[in-house]
Amino acid sequence: MDIRSQTPPLFPPPVFDDAFRAAFDELLIWRRDVRRFKRDPVAAGEIEVLLAAAHHAPSVGNSQPWRFVLVESPARRGLVRADFERCNAEALAGYAGERAQRYASLKLAGLDNAPVQLAIFADLETPQGHGLGRRTMPETMEYSAVGAVILLWLAARAAGIGVGWLSILDPVAIGHALETPDNWRLIAYLCIGYPADPSDVPELERAGWKERADWRDLLIKR
Amino acid sequence: MDIRSQTPPLFPPPVFDDAFRAAFDELLIWRRDVRRFKRDPVAAGEIEVLLAAAHHAPSVGNSQPWRFVLVESPARRGLVRADFERCNAEALAGYAGERAQRYASLKLAGLDNAPVQLAIFADLETPQGHGLGRRTMPETMEYSAVGAVILLWLAARAAGIGVGWLSILDPVAIGHALETPDNWRLIAYLCIGYPADPSDVPELERAGWKERADWRDLLIKR
Repeated sequence: MDIRSQTPPLFPPPVFDDAFRAAFDELLIWRRDVRRFKRDPVAAGEIEVLLAAAHHAPSVGNSQPWRFVLVESPARRGLVRADFERCNAEALAGYAGERAQRYASLKLAGLDNAPVQLAIFADLETPQGHGLGRRTMPETMEYSAVGAVILLWLAARAAGIGVGWLSILDPVAIGHALETPDNWRLIAYLCIGYPADPSDVPELERAGWKERADWRDLLIKR
Repeated sequence: MDIRSQTPPLFPPPVFDDAFRAAFDELLIWRRDVRRFKRDPVAAGEIEVLLAAAHHAPSVGNSQPWRFVLVESPARRGLVRADFERCNAEALAGYAGERAQRYASLKLAGLDNAPVQLAIFADLETPQGHGLGRRTMPETMEYSAVGAVILLWLAARAAGIGVGWLSILDPVAIGHALETPDNWRLIAYLCIGYPADPSDVPELERAGWKERADWRDLLIKR
């Protein structure tokens, strides 16, 4: 007789009911890349809640390689903004038309107004986890830090806080601007704050939906 | 007068209450890398629910680069398993001790028992999104597909379904085994099914917790 089957777990895992699952679906649907922020500060303690959520991300070999940099100094924010403008000018050179311009101007508005700027890096040389599982796909270190970004984003949305992800940046230049260690790689630069204009959310969402592929078209069987 | 401020949104965004936020925290805490699966099939329709959740991930320039491959044929599963064994033998050569052996044997058990095997790729050349936002950090294409993995994982946990992520694989070899297009890059190979032994969940969780860093030690301000 296996005694383990008779012993109840000390902490029984929770069961997530249909109401939770429905609300969770709503969370995924309404998570979005926020571009226009109020300047109001984020409520006390909320950023800590978001970072704690991010810290629950899965990581390869339990390496927990995410590193968080809150960018507060106006001088450093200015360096980031200048890098964005430089990279964006180069990016726009490859495009004609209004769409790319609009994309960039929205992102810039985030940098100018969001009260919180958070850079998330991956420490590619952390000894944590002893290197387990990352020999053939070392990029899973970066992927682990992406998981932290996603959990932070969902937790923010659940708190009514918006997140916008900037990728039009030179990751090496941002590392220099923030004086981070050489073995840290920039994963995401996030603007965080309360969305400026709740009434325009559905417009953005519906615009996004129109372009959304059907996931069934992205599935093959082998 | 700005008429927009007087017009209520057509679809008001949902408010997530404290009960939801508490349950969401539980979801993050209890999401875990499952290694031991029951052989029972996943309930009808659930995999589709998980894929639909994954499809809500954020993506750079709305590129939606994730591609899903359900690996069903025993022959192809055999190729994946053989690749895992080969890569794992090489990985273990770099380690002494029981820990790495145990890590690998647990993962192998997942491949042998989980009823569903799902590979998630990123299509690095999708025209969707017109290349917006991915010039300076093209790796955001892969990162977008990682987001799909994470959302699928959380949705699975909410449904009582376990997910295990294998990274001890040669991504190019897996692409060949699954005959995927050359421009698809393997992001994650997932085992999916019901966890075998709910009573051992807390043990694994607590073991993980012991090694967990404090997120406050991973935060700097600049």
